[in-house]
Order: sequence, then structure tokens, then C-alpha cells
Amino acid sequence: MKVVKFGGSSVASAAQFKKVAAIVRADDERRIVVVSAPGKRYKEDTKTTDLLIALAYSVLNGNNYGDLLSQVVERYADIVRELELPESLIQDVKASLEERIQTHRSNEDRLLDALKASGENENAKLMAAYFTKLGEESHYVSPKEAGMVVTNEPGNARILPEAYDNLKSLRERTGILVVPGFFGYSKEGNIVTFPRGGSDITGSIVAAGVEADVYENFTDVSSIYSVNPNLVEHPHEMEELTYQEMRELAYAGFSVFHDEALQPVVEKKIPVNVKNTNDPTAPGTFIRSEREQNGLPVIGISSDSGFCSINLKKYLMNREVGFGRHLLEILETEEIPFEHTPSGIDNMSVIIRDHHLYNGKETRILDRIRTELGVESVHVERGLAMVMVVGEGMANSVGVAAKATNALHEAGINIKMINQGSSEVSMMFGVEAKNADRAVQSLYHAYFAPVPAK
Amino acid sequence: MKVVKFGGSSVASAAQFKKVAAIVRADDERRIVVVSAPGKRYKEDTKTTDLLIALAYSVLNGNNYGDLLSQVVERYADIVRELELPESLIQDVKASLEERIQTHRSNEDRLLDALKASGENENAKLMAAYFTKLGEESHYVSPKEAGMVVTNEPGNARILPEAYDNLKSLRERTGILVVPGFFGYSKEGNIVTFPRGGSDITGSIVAAGVEADVYENFTDVSSIYSVNPNLVEHPHEMEELTYQEMRELAYAGFSVFHDEALQPVVEKKIPVNVKNTNDPTAPGTFIRSEREQNGLPVIGISSDSGFCSINLKKYLMNREVGFGRHLLEILETEEIPFEHTPSGIDNMSVIIRDHHLYNGKETRILDRIRTELGVESVHVERGLAMVMVVGEGMANSVGVAAKATNALHEAGINIKMINQGSSEVSMMFGVEAKNADRAVQSLYHAYFAPVPAK
Repeated sequence: MKVVKFGGSSVASAAQFKKVAAIVRADDERRIVVVSAPGKRYKEDTKTTDLLIALAYSVLNGNNYGDLLSQVVERYADIVRELELPESLIQDVKASLEERIQTHRSNEDRLLDALKASGENENAKLMAAYFTKLGEESHYVSPKEAGMVVTNEPGNARILPEAYDNLKSLRERTGILVVPGFFGYSKEGNIVTFPRGGSDITGSIVAAGVEADVYENFTDVSSIYSVNPNLVEHPHEMEELTYQEMRELAYAGFSVFHDEALQPVVEKKIPVNVKNTNDPTAPGTFIRSEREQNGLPVIGISSDSGFCSINLKKYLMNREVGFGRHLLEILETEEIPFEHTPSGIDNMSVIIRDHHLYNGKETRILDRIRTELGVESVHVERGLAMVMVVGEGMANSVGVAAKATNALHEAGINIKMINQGSSEVSMMFGVEAKNADRAVQSLYHAYFAPVPAK
Repeated sequence: MKVVKFGGSSVASAAQFKKVAAIVRADDERRIVVVSAPGKRYKEDTKTTDLLIALAYSVLNGNNYGDLLSQVVERYADIVRELELPESLIQDVKASLEERIQTHRSNEDRLLDALKASGENENAKLMAAYFTKLGEESHYVSPKEAGMVVTNEPGNARILPEAYDNLKSLRERTGILVVPGFFGYSKEGNIVTFPRGGSDITGSIVAAGVEADVYENFTDVSSIYSVNPNLVEHPHEMEELTYQEMRELAYAGFSVFHDEALQPVVEKKIPVNVKNTNDPTAPGTFIRSEREQNGLPVIGISSDSGFCSINLKKYLMNREVGFGRHLLEILETEEIPFEHTPSGIDNMSVIIRDHHLYNGKETRILDRIRTELGVESVHVERGLAMVMVVGEGMANSVGVAAKATNALHEAGINIKMINQGSSEVSMMFGVEAKNADRAVQSLYHAYFAPVPAK
């Protein structure tokens, strides 16, 4: 059994709905379909979810929201008319939106979640109706009915463990089940949306719950590239990569999946197959717990900026039992997660995402480090980027580090920091943010042969 | 004013005493002399301190210790006779040792400290007597008289802050002052010895206390080599290096100074000049707070084995505020200082000295990490060595990492870990201990041109 998730661009229009239906009907194992809200139909288009957010704020601000409401309804109406579905569905969409607005208009959090979630919810109903029209048994399954219980944090739902048991019973249902992505229900009965990457999270949770054989994730690329295609022409395409590799790449700017989205399938070791709605016969990219070694020690390269480093120095620091713990405790009380802590002998750096150092936190943290740890010096270095070289084959490949440092050296890029853990699935280089793109390019060319243009 | 310290081999015999006297008399600034106990006169010789330790255990075990006592006295008697000092000095040595034995024979800690300290103490008296015989005004100054107050931890004395003020008054004294190294007095009046590198510590404390212009440390090499001379023929000699460089090299097996020995002079920024008693006109090596850049980004390479790595893995680890702190806290409650904490995205390693994992600590720590941190996996990897590439010039040298990783690659050595902090005074490579010597050799040859044989 396969759980198949379609992203926003895959369900943006009637034409896309037809592709989705063809894909699902081509494989009897595709039993559960998770859909996003209608995304962009063309480059300048607006995503339905963005319209819905605008609608919510318009309501909250007491403005006349009629136009925005019409624009949203029109997105669905277009699909309904072109697919020749019952016109009543358009009225249903409108009635449902109005009802959500009236119910929650005085509660910002609830209204936002209810309207954002409606994008996926109405689209799922349309999709089920379309399958029915095509002669397939199909059912819209609301997250409430499916038992997708989540924490009651608006916009930041976390799945509750019992949800997986509830979802398992979907296996017993007949027909093509269509589940809206992006939200669940709290125990209090509230609609609560997931954080970024919401529909991917739903698909992953459902796949884990029903213990699917594969979680197919349909989007608009035929495979995952080894490097950001904006930086390199005709980049290498990955046939497969491991969860861990995906995670390390996602950490530093690889935006295929939000890094928490895959957690449910990772735990159950369910393979993820990233495929293209517009080219469904292409094999796509598999993400699994283990992969065949293809002889390439490195599978991908990514980078992300927005890091800073708190650098501190104290003679004989490493003799002080408790020094590192105390330092991390200072960050913890300010609720700042740290990324890495490279250290010399008498110096230690803590790398963090620099958006954490706002509202006087920087001054407060530096003061505490000075007084509580008695350091000789401490300062913050901003404008850092982390470049990740990732691959399960690195552990046993002697020359990987040499190749990487040579490439950066030849590109004239100073390495501010190197961090290679004992796991050796990745090597991380801290560079100045202004050098990050060039660093990625030079590393890519060091590890990958050119791919001929198609 | 200079404080001049002579190591054990420099004061091992009458012939060496003569060299010391010539050195001190050659420079009026050499006003305070710190001496060790008589060291080895030839390769198979026994250090006086080792004889004294054997003597102490012989006393404690109730054995007949007459022979050992005679052997110790004979070391001093040799010097006294050959330098034609008053024979009464020999009797004084013997009486002093007997008195210490009788006073402390039932207290292991006190007896050990009292006898170990006597090695330096008696030698200092002889040295002062020799200067006097040569017509110089000279005074033996006991650490008690000098106000060298320390903590009352047998064998592990730490200097107390007021000692520096007390020592400052030595500036007012006339003549050549001879101070025994290796011990101080607790406030209770006990003799307490310093840990390893004891006479170096005394010299450093005295230099800091009197605010000397230079702390001259005489030993048996004309300069500090950039690499262990057992691994490389005719290694490069350093003219100068910084405290920080010395410290980083000392961390990984560079045994010139025990790393805590220099702390007092580092704080006062007093330069240290390592010189050779047997070749006193050679300029030796200066250790200072800053140095001229000589164009070499790397100044030295060292390695040390006996490390292990606790490797752990947990999905989305870096999202858990408090994870790293909790991990270090587990080590802290077991009183284990950690060395480094390289990390990937979902994995983290803690490098520690592996002698800490004894007596069931390993099982206890791994159990706690499993249960308290809920990690997916944790294991200990033993047999690691740390190889340090050190140099203040590294910060601005783009190619240092490339050169190092190339050299290791060409030598076929797998890099288990790379740790380069933002301070960039050093780069550290974790390798299997069996590869450590070859790693040092290959790195040395990558950075240093051959030195012609003398």
C-alpha cells in the first residue's frame, strides 16, 4: 500500500487534477492520497493558502473581505467547472469558509488556523468528488475522522502518539481515500495547522500510521539534485539517498523537505519516493534508511547562511570540569539552541543561528559568559555560512577531506571552521556568507563530473 | 632582572654546577636561581627524586632503608667533594633527611612530600654555598621564607594568590638568591609538592612574583623543535613561539613544559627563554605573548594518543534545547573533563581521555545517555590519537587545511575527525592511534622544508 502526497502545484488546477487522477489510477497500491491546497498555476499566481491568510487578516482587521473571499472561492470554482463536478460543491466551499469566519472572527489564532486549513480541506473534497466522477470508489476523510490528534498549539501542531494507532484503521477502509494535508485536530476539537511543510508532514504521518510500503511525494521536479540548480547547470540527479543524508542536506538550505517532515517515516523506515506529477514515469529519487553505494563518497552539497559564532577564550579551559556545560546552560536559559561547538585547547566557539541574538540577548549572554565563566575574551562573529558536504560513503574514503579543502583553497576561500564528527556522514565548513555560493560551486565541481545536457 | 631555572640534568653533578655558575655570573640580571634536584648524569643513572620516592616507600613499608639513604646522600656528597665545599654540608644533608623521616614516618602523604621536596631543597643549599665559595654574595632562600604559600593538597599543590605579593619582596634582597623548585608551604606549615613539572612551576611563579623581565629556563636542548625529534631527523628549530602555540602543542604530547607550568608567567606576559646549559650562548627559543610572523603559517606539529570518542546519534538532536548541556552534565557528574564535541546534524561525539572510563564509568555513562537522552545509538570508539597542527599564522592562510588533508591523504591515513575552531591557532585531526606517528611525519614534511644537517 502506498500513501501518495501531492504538493500545491500538483493540485493547482483542473489540468493538474487530471494528472493526479491518472497517476493514482495507474497503481492499485496508491490507496491513500494526501493533497495540498491549490498552489501556483503560473509564476505570478498566488497560492490559495496565501489568499486565505490575507482573508483571515482582512476579517480580523474588520475590513470588507468580500473580494478576497470571492478570489478564494474562484480557485475552487475553476476546478469544479472544468472537471464538470456538481456546481453545489462551489456553494459548499463558500458556505464552509463563511462558517469558519463567523465562528472564529474574534479569535486570531483560531481563525488563522481554520482558514489556512480550509485550503487543503476543500481541495481534498474536490479530489474525492473527481475520483467518484471517474467511477472510482473514493472518500474524503477528514483528519478528525482519521483520528489525527495533535497538540493544541496554533500554527505549530505536533502529532500525538495515539494518532498513529487511530490512523492504522484507515487500512480497513475501501476505495481511494483523500486526506487533506497540513492540519489535525486537538483533543479539544480545534483545527490546528502544522508548521512549515505541513502537507509533507501529514503525508509522512499517514504513511507511518498505515505502515505504507512507500510514501510517494509528488512535486514538480523529476528528482532531487545534488546541488542547488541555481548555482550549477545540469546538476547531478540523485537516484537514492538515505534519511540521514537528506537530513544533513536539509539542515543547510536544501529545501526539498522541511527537516521535521520526514520524522514519522524515518522511525518506521518507510521509503520516500520523490516523484514528478508532470513526469510520473520518471523513477524519481528514493529516500531510504540505507542505500547502495554508487562509488561516489559524496552525494550532495548545500549551504545556508545566517549563522554566527560566539568565540571565547580562557587559559586551561579544558581542565575545568563543568565549563562546557555551564556555557551551554547559559544559552539554554535564553532558549537558544546551539548548532556546533568547535573547540581548540583554550578556546571554544558556539555556532548558533543568528536570528536568536535579538532583543538584547547578545549583550545579556556575553555579560553572563564574562562574569560566570571568567573568560579572557568573548566576541560574536556574524555573517557566517555553513557549507555541508554530505555522503554516507565518506566514512571510508581517505581523500574526501583533501579534495574539499583543495577545492576551497583553489577558489581562494578561507575556511573559518571545519567540523567533522566521528559519524562522517558529513563534513561542514564555516565560511564567510559572501563566499558561500562560490564554495558550493567549487566543492560540487570537485566531486561531480559534468552531466551532459539533456 | 631575570629568574633562571635549571632542570635536573643541569644540576646533576659538580661539572654541571660549574656550568650553572658560569652562566649565572655571565649576566648581572640573573639574580634569582631556581634549581631542581640532581637529575641523571648519564643515560642509565637514577634521578635523585626517584631515589627519594623509593626511600619514602622503604620507610613506610618498615624496610631497612639505610642503603637508599646512603645512595641519596652520596649524590650530594659527590658534588660537595668535587666542588671542594665544606664537608659539613654532607652531614647537614644526612641530618635533614633523617629528621624528615623521623617526623613523618607514620604519614604517607607528608613523608612523600617531605622527602621528594628535599631533593631540590638540599641542592639549592649546595648551589648557594658554591656561589659563596666563588666569592659571590649568595643566599639559599627557602620557599617558606619566600612566602610561597600553597594549598594543602599533598603532591598537587596550587599556588595561593598572596604568594605573588610575598615573592615580590625578593626584589629587595641582595646577592644571588637560590630557591629550590618543586614545593611550597601550606598555611599549616606543611611542605607540599607541586604536580608534574614542579620546578618549572616554581620558576614560573617566582618570575611572576618578582615581575622578572625574562624567565630563563635552562635544560639540555638548545631550542624547541617543531616536531618530536624521534620522528623526524634534523627537525626545524623554533626561534620563538607564543604562549598559545606552546599550550596547544603541549596539549598533544609536546613535553617541553607541563601545560600548567607557564600559567603564572602567561598572566604577567613575562617572556620565557628556553636555553641549553651545555650551550649557553645559543639564543634558545623564546615563548612570548606575541611573535613576529616568520612567513610560516604552521610552527609545530604534535600528537598524543589515549583518546576515545563517545559517539551518539538522535534524529533532530539539534532542535532539542538542552540536549548538549544535559550530555555534558552527565560527564560532569562523573567528574570527566571533555576535550572536544564535534557534531554533525543528528550526531554528536564527545572526545575524552580514555583513562577516565574505568571502574564501570563507561557502562554507567552509556546507560545514562541512553535513558536520559533517549538517543538512537551510542557507542565508545577507543584507540584514537589527536594530531595538532599549530601556528598563529594559520588564521589568514587559505591553504593550510588543504595542505594538511592532502598530506594525510597521500600517506593513506583516514581522518576520523577534524576540529578547527574559530580561533584558528590550531587544527586538530583525530586519527587511529596506530597512524599517529606517520600522520605527524607526513604533516611535518608538508609544512617544513628539510633542515640541512649541522
